[in-house]
Amino acid sequence: MTTELTAERQLTEQERQHLHTLYKEFHQNPELSMQEHRTAERIERELTALGISSFRCGGTGVVGIVENGDGPVVAFRADTDALPIEEATGLEYSSEATGTLPDGTDVPVMHGCGHDSHITGLLGAAQVLLRNRETWSGTLVLIFQPGEETAAGAAAMIEDGIWDKAPRPEVVLGQHVSPGKAGTVDISAGPAMAMADSFRVTVTGRQTHGSQPQNGKDPIVAAAAMVTRLQSVVSRELSPLDSAVVTVGTFHAGLKENIIPETAEFSLNIRSLDEDVRSTVLNAVERIINAEAAAAGLEQPQMERLYHFPLNYNDETAVDRVLPALQKAVGAQNVAESKPRMGSEDFGLLGSAIGVPSVFWFFGGTPDGDPEGPVNHSPYFAPVIEPTLTAATDAAVSTLLAWLGRS
Amino acid sequence: MTTELTAERQLTEQERQHLHTLYKEFHQNPELSMQEHRTAERIERELTALGISSFRCGGTGVVGIVENGDGPVVAFRADTDALPIEEATGLEYSSEATGTLPDGTDVPVMHGCGHDSHITGLLGAAQVLLRNRETWSGTLVLIFQPGEETAAGAAAMIEDGIWDKAPRPEVVLGQHVSPGKAGTVDISAGPAMAMADSFRVTVTGRQTHGSQPQNGKDPIVAAAAMVTRLQSVVSRELSPLDSAVVTVGTFHAGLKENIIPETAEFSLNIRSLDEDVRSTVLNAVERIINAEAAAAGLEQPQMERLYHFPLNYNDETAVDRVLPALQKAVGAQNVAESKPRMGSEDFGLLGSAIGVPSVFWFFGGTPDGDPEGPVNHSPYFAPVIEPTLTAATDAAVSTLLAWLGRS
Amino acid sequence: MTTELTAERQLTEQERQHLHTLYKEFHQNPELSMQEHRTAERIERELTALGISSFRCGGTGVVGIVENGDGPVVAFRADTDALPIEEATGLEYSSEATGTLPDGTDVPVMHGCGHDSHITGLLGAAQVLLRNRETWSGTLVLIFQPGEETAAGAAAMIEDGIWDKAPRPEVVLGQHVSPGKAGTVDISAGPAMAMADSFRVTVTGRQTHGSQPQNGKDPIVAAAAMVTRLQSVVSRELSPLDSAVVTVGTFHAGLKENIIPETAEFSLNIRSLDEDVRSTVLNAVERIINAEAAAAGLEQPQMERLYHFPLNYNDETAVDRVLPALQKAVGAQNVAESKPRMGSEDFGLLGSAIGVPSVFWFFGGTPDGDPEGPVNHSPYFAPVIEPTLTAATDAAVSTLLAWLGRS
Amino acid sequence: MTTELTAERQLTEQERQHLHTLYKEFHQNPELSMQEHRTAERIERELTALGISSFRCGGTGVVGIVENGDGPVVAFRADTDALPIEEATGLEYSSEATGTLPDGTDVPVMHGCGHDSHITGLLGAAQVLLRNRETWSGTLVLIFQPGEETAAGAAAMIEDGIWDKAPRPEVVLGQHVSPGKAGTVDISAGPAMAMADSFRVTVTGRQTHGSQPQNGKDPIVAAAAMVTRLQSVVSRELSPLDSAVVTVGTFHAGLKENIIPETAEFSLNIRSLDEDVRSTVLNAVERIINAEAAAAGLEQPQMERLYHFPLNYNDETAVDRVLPALQKAVGAQNVAESKPRMGSEDFGLLGSAIGVPSVFWFFGGTPDGDPEGPVNHSPYFAPVIEPTLTAATDAAVSTLLAWLGRS
Repeated sequence: MTTELTAERQLTEQERQHLHTLYKEFHQNPELSMQEHRTAERIERELTALGISSFRCGGTGVVGIVENGDGPVVAFRADTDALPIEEATGLEYSSEATGTLPDGTDVPVMHGCGHDSHITGLLGAAQVLLRNRETWSGTLVLIFQPGEETAAGAAAMIEDGIWDKAPRPEVVLGQHVSPGKAGTVDISAGPAMAMADSFRVTVTGRQTHGSQPQNGKDPIVAAAAMVTRLQSVVSRELSPLDSAVVTVGTFHAGLKENIIPETAEFSLNIRSLDEDVRSTVLNAVERIINAEAAAAGLEQPQMERLYHFPLNYNDETAVDRVLPALQKAVGAQNVAESKPRMGSEDFGLLGSAIGVPSVFWFFGGTPDGDPEGPVNHSPYFAPVIEPTLTAATDAAVSTLLAWLGRS
Repeated sequence: MTTELTAERQLTEQERQHLHTLYKEFHQNPELSMQEHRTAERIERELTALGISSFRCGGTGVVGIVENGDGPVVAFRADTDALPIEEATGLEYSSEATGTLPDGTDVPVMHGCGHDSHITGLLGAAQVLLRNRETWSGTLVLIFQPGEETAAGAAAMIEDGIWDKAPRPEVVLGQHVSPGKAGTVDISAGPAMAMADSFRVTVTGRQTHGSQPQNGKDPIVAAAAMVTRLQSVVSRELSPLDSAVVTVGTFHAGLKENIIPETAEFSLNIRSLDEDVRSTVLNAVERIINAEAAAAGLEQPQMERLYHFPLNYNDETAVDRVLPALQKAVGAQNVAESKPRMGSEDFGLLGSAIGVPSVFWFFGGTPDGDPEGPVNHSPYFAPVIEPTLTAATDAAVSTLLAWLGRS
Repeated sequence: MTTELTAERQLTEQERQHLHTLYKEFHQNPELSMQEHRTAERIERELTALGISSFRCGGTGVVGIVENGDGPVVAFRADTDALPIEEATGLEYSSEATGTLPDGTDVPVMHGCGHDSHITGLLGAAQVLLRNRETWSGTLVLIFQPGEETAAGAAAMIEDGIWDKAPRPEVVLGQHVSPGKAGTVDISAGPAMAMADSFRVTVTGRQTHGSQPQNGKDPIVAAAAMVTRLQSVVSRELSPLDSAVVTVGTFHAGLKENIIPETAEFSLNIRSLDEDVRSTVLNAVERIINAEAAAAGLEQPQMERLYHFPLNYNDETAVDRVLPALQKAVGAQNVAESKPRMGSEDFGLLGSAIGVPSVFWFFGGTPDGDPEGPVNHSPYFAPVIEPTLTAATDAAVSTLLAWLGRS
Repeated sequence: MTTELTAERQLTEQERQHLHTLYKEFHQNPELSMQEHRTAERIERELTALGISSFRCGGTGVVGIVENGDGPVVAFRADTDALPIEEATGLEYSSEATGTLPDGTDVPVMHGCGHDSHITGLLGAAQVLLRNRETWSGTLVLIFQPGEETAAGAAAMIEDGIWDKAPRPEVVLGQHVSPGKAGTVDISAGPAMAMADSFRVTVTGRQTHGSQPQNGKDPIVAAAAMVTRLQSVVSRELSPLDSAVVTVGTFHAGLKENIIPETAEFSLNIRSLDEDVRSTVLNAVERIINAEAAAAGLEQPQMERLYHFPLNYNDETAVDRVLPALQKAVGAQNVAESKPRMGSEDFGLLGSAIGVPSVFWFFGGTPDGDPEGPVNHSPYFAPVIEPTLTAATDAAVSTLLAWLGRS
C-alpha cells in the first residue's frame, strides 16, 4: 500500500501499536446489537484520553465532537456491534464471549462482520487529525453507532436526537471492511448497498404424537415446503437481469423427535436494489407462504416484520470528492469502482433523516483478496491487522480532509 | 364403568381420594427422561408408607417387591417420565415445571403422555392387594421405570441387573392411558406396538452472509429438501397395506436471519410393525438424506442413532388370561380387541431380556373418547381423573390376580 | 397342480392345444379399452363354433348364453381390453400392435394386465361344460366385458341393458391373473379390491420465452410442486394403519425446451379401501392442487374426473361356496386367503347394479411366484402359458359347478 | 416514427402493400426449424422477381447476392423458422399450420417469434436498395437462415460453405422483432444476447401398476423433484448480481393414469452471459439431476445435449457505425441503448466463424410497448404490421448504407 498522505498525517509507529492493542481488545470483547455497553465505555475512555468530549446517544451509541474553528461540519460513522457466531478463526485473540439474544437464547458472540476494525480505524483517524489540528478547520462529528446488524442503531440515534445534540453535517461518511485485498478500497456511485427486509414467520400446525400424523398437522413439513418453494421467487418471478436475494436464515421447530410440534418458526432476509423488484419479491414471498400453509390445511402463518433497511445510496457529487481522497490514501491503483453490493446498512439513515448526502465504501481485509476465502458473517472471517487498519485510518483521514482540509 | 371385582378388591373412597392427590402431585411435578429424581423419591415414600420394601435400579428406577407366600412371580410396570411440552390444558393442576434437555436447552415439562396415571394406578393396585393379602399368594414385583420416552429406561434397569436383584417373573404386565373413553380398555394379541428408530441428522453447509448465497452452501434449503423428499418413502416405497411412519419432529438451524448458517440439525422418528418394512424405510431414509446433501453439493450428513424401540409383542397365551381379567375389571362391553398401534414402548424389553412373555394394554382417559380430541403428546392432552384412575387400578388388580389369585 | 376334478371335467389335450393357440392369438392382437373390435369378433367366432348363441352389449362387449334345463342362473365375466404399453417380454408371441388413445396419440398396445388369459380361461370352461352338459343344469351367462382399464366397460354393458337381455343371475363370478405362482389361487372375503378415482388436472400458466420467466407463469414448476406435495397426503394425513395410494401416472407439458408453456397436464389415480379414507384423500388432493396453484400465482386448475371404480366386495356367503370349489380345482394347498388388493375393478358393478352378490379371485401366472418379478402393467409381465391356463379353466369350471352341478 | 431517410430510400406505398401481403403469407405458412421448404421457395421467387441471383445453402437456407460495383461486402441476415405453438392471437391471418417434430409428434406451428417480420423487412430493404442502385456501391449478401430456434441453421450454412460460395463480408448485420413499441429500436454494445445450452433428460424408473408403487420406481416423482430442486441453482448458487436462467420447457411421462411409467423425459434450457456463471450453472444442474435420481434409487439419468448457442456479441466499433444509422432510420428519440437480453441467437456464428464482427439489434412490434403484453414465444404474440415493417425495412436500409452508401 502506498499512501500519498504526508508523513505527519500518517500513523506513528506508536499510534499504530496502540491501535493494534485496541483492535484485539474489541475483537475479544464483542457484544450483541444494542447491548454494546462495555464497547461504548471503552470508546468513551479512548475519546477522553484524546481530549474529545462525547455524549451517549441511542443507548449504547457514542458521539464525539471535535470543534476546530470555522468550516464545514463533517460526520464519520463507525458501527460497533457483533454477531451471534461461534468464532472459528483460530486467531490468538479469538473471541470466547457469549451473549443473550432478545428471545433469551444464550449464544456465542464474534465480531464476524469486522465492526471492530471500523471502530479502530475511526479512533485512529481522530488521533491523527487531533495531532494535525493546524492543517484543517471545521467540526468533526465522530459517530460510534450501535445495532447495525438489526437495523436498530441508526434509528435509535436519530430517535434520541443526534442531530439536535450534534451540529448538522454537510456530509456523512462511513466505511466497512470486506474480504477484498488489504490495502485496497472499492466504492460505487449511486446505489451502493441493497434494501433489506426481514420477517419472522410462525407456522402453526397441530401438535400430536410422532406416530400419529393423522391426528395432527405437521408444521415442519409445511415450513420445509415453504423454504423449498421460496427458491422459485428469484428463479422464476424476476428478470435474470434484476438482483434479489431471499434467504431463510433460521428455522426452529420441535423439542423432541417423537412429537410433531405445534409450530415451526423461520426467519427471512430479503435483499433488493430496486423498489419494483422489492415489491415483486415481497408479494411473491407472502403469496407462497400463505398458499403453502393452505396446501397443508393450516391457517395463514403469522408474518412479523423484523426490520427494513433502506437503499444505501452514494451521492454522486459527494463521491466525486471522496474518490480522489481515497486514491490519495491508498494509491490510485488500489481503488476500484464496483457494482452495488447486496449487503445492507442502516448507515444511510444518518444522512437521509436530515436530507444530507452520504458516502460509504469498503476497505479490504485479507492478504490476497482470495475470492474463495471466508466472507463477512463466516465464523472464519479474519481480517489481517495490517495493512487493514492503516488503510482504514488513512482512508478516514484523507476523506475527512477532503472537506475539512485547509487548501 | 361396571366392575365385577368384589367390594374389598375395589378402592375405598379414602384410598381413591389419596390417589387423586397423588396424581395431581405427579402431574404438577413432571421430570424429563432419566431425570425423575423427585418422582422416584415420591414413589419410594409411598411404597414405604404401604410397608413395601424397594430398591433403586437404573438410576431413577424404583422396584418394589411384595412377597406373599408361595406362588408365581408376576411383574407389573409403570413408566414415570414426562415430556418437553408446554402444558396448555388449562387444568387447575397444570404443570409449570421446566427441565434441561441433554443438550443444555431449558424447556417446559409436562406429563403429556399420561405416565402420571400409570404410576398412580400401580400404586393404587398395590394398596388394594396389600389390603387383601389373604386372597392371593405369590410374589408381586412393582416396576417404576424411568426414561420410557427415550427408550433408555428399560435398558438401564436391565443393565443394572433388575432380574438379578428381583425374582424372575413368569409374565410382565403393563398398561398405558390413551385418548379412548375413560372406563374402557383395549388390547391386541400379537404385535401390539410398533418398532421405533430415532436419529439426529446434522447437515453441514458453509456459513456466509445472508446476502451472498453464492459464497456459502445453504444447509437450511438442503435440510428442507430432505424433509420434503422423505414424504415419498411412505407414499412410494411401501405397499399401501403395510404400515410405517417417518416423522421429522425437530428442525433447528441458524441464529440470525441475515446469516446462512453452517449447519442445520433435525431429528427423525420412524415406526414400523415388521422387520422388512423397517429395513426398507431405514435404507430409503438414509439414501434420501445422503442424496439430497449431494444435490446441494454438501458432504454426507452425520446421522446419529438416538434409540431403537423393539416391537412390543403381546404373547397370545398370556393375552388369553389377561382378557377375561380386564373384562372382569371394567365390564366385558368396555373391552375391545384392537389393531396394533404405531406408538412404541420399551416395555417389551423387560420380558424379552429374560425370555418371559409380556402383555400391554391401553385404558381410556377422556369423557367420551372423542376421536377429534387431543391425543398423547398434545399440549392439550388431559385425561379426566375419574373413572380413569379407578379403571387403571381395577385393571391392574384384576390382571395381577389372574396369576396370583387363590382359586 | 393337482385337481380333484373328474377326468371328463378336465381339458383334453386337444382342447388345451386349442386354448394355447387362442391365447397367443389374443396376446398378439391386443386392443385398447372400448376398441376391442377384432377381439369381440374372435370371441364370437369361438362361441359360434361351440354352438353358443351370443349378442353384443355395450359396444364391444359379448354375452354368450348356455341354457341347460332348470336351475340357477350364474354369470362368469372375463374382461377383454389391453393397455398402452410397449411389450418388452421378449416372448416369441409378443405384441407389436399399436392403437390410438382417445386424445389421438398413437401408442403401442400390450395385454400387460393379462386379460387375454381371462378370455381364454372362460372359453376353455365353456367348452368343458358343454362337453359335460349332462352333469349340470341351469343357465350359464358368459360375459366378455370390454373397457375394464378405463372403468367404462361394465357401466356400458349395464347401460346397454345386459340384465334385460340376459337372464338375471344369482351370483356373478370372475377371476384375474396375478404375479403369483402358476397353479395357485388366492381370494379374500369382504373387501377384495380398492376403490379407484381418477382425474385429469390441467394447470394453466402463462406462456413466454424460456429466457424470460418473469414475463410468464411457469406451469411446469407449479405442477412439479403439486406432484411433490401430493406425497404428503399418504405420509402425513392418513393413519399408517389405513391404506391408500396417490399415483400421478402421466405428466405432459410443453413442446419446446425454450418455451415456458401455457399449460401442464397430469393425471391422478387414487386408491382406497374405505369411504372415510377416500374422502380424506380426495379432499387433501384437491386442497393441495389448488393451493400450489395459488403459490405459483395461478388460477385454480381444472380437475376433470376420468372415472370412479367402486369397492370390489366379495360376498362372504358366496365366498363360502367358491372357496371349496377352488380347492377342488387346484388343490387345497394351492388356495390362499389373502389381504385385499389395492388394484381396482369394475367387475363388482355387474352384480351390484342388480343387487346380486359377486366373487372375484386371482390365479397365479409365474413359474415360481417371484415377488421381485414383473407385475401387471409392467412391460415385462409375461404369465407362463401352463399351468396358468389350465388352472384358470379348472377354477372357472369348478366354481360354476358349485352352483350349477347336479348333486 | 420519423425517418430521416430521403424519400427515394423509403418504401413506396405500392412496395409497402406488397410487403404486407408477403408478411401475412409468411405468417400463415410457418414451418418448423430446418423444414422451411415452402418458405425458402417463396423467398427465392421473391428474389428472382427482384432480379437477384441466389443459391441454397444449409438445406433450406437461401443466400442472395447483389453486386453493385466496387466497395465493401456487407451481409444482412434474416432467420426464417417458426415454432411449435398453437396461435391464439385471433388475427385474421392466424396460422392454422401444423408440422412434425423430429420425434414424430404432430404439432401446431406459429411464427411465435416473429421471424416472418425479419424475412419481410430484409426483402423490403433489398427492394429499396435495388431501386437506388446509383446511391451505393459494393456487394450486398442477403442471408435467409433456417433453423435459428434449434441453433442448427447458422451452423448448417457454415458447414455447407456459405463463406466459400458468397464473398466474405466485413460485417454481418441482423435484427429481431421484440415486444417494444413499434417504430422504436434498441441495441446494446458488447454482450448482446445470452449463451444458451439445451439438454434432454431421460429419467428411467421401473414401470408398475399404479396401485403398487412398492413394486416399481416412480420416475414422475423423481423428475418433479428435479424440477423443484433446480430452482435453487439460480436462487442459491449464483451471485444476485449475475444473470442466468434455468428453464424446464417440456416434461413428458406416462400414457395412462393407472400405470407408473418406465421413464420421464424433460428438456432444459439454460441461459448465461458469462463463462464462469455458465460453468457454475451447468455443473449444478448436472449434480442436482444425478443426486435426485440417487434419492429416488434410480440410475443416473441420460442427459443429451440438444444445442449450444454462443454469446451474441456486438462489436463495439461496428455499433458506433450502426447506432447513428438507426437513429437516422427511426429518429434519435426512438433508439435506446439497452442491457443485454437473456434470449439467444445463432446469428453471431455467421461472423465469428470467419472472424468478422457482427451487430444485432431489436425493433419493436407493439402499438404501445406494453410491458405486461405478450412476448416472443407467447401464443398471443402479434406484432402490429405498421409501423413495424416499415421500421424494419428502414433500419436495414440505413445500416447497410452506413457501409455501402456513396458518401
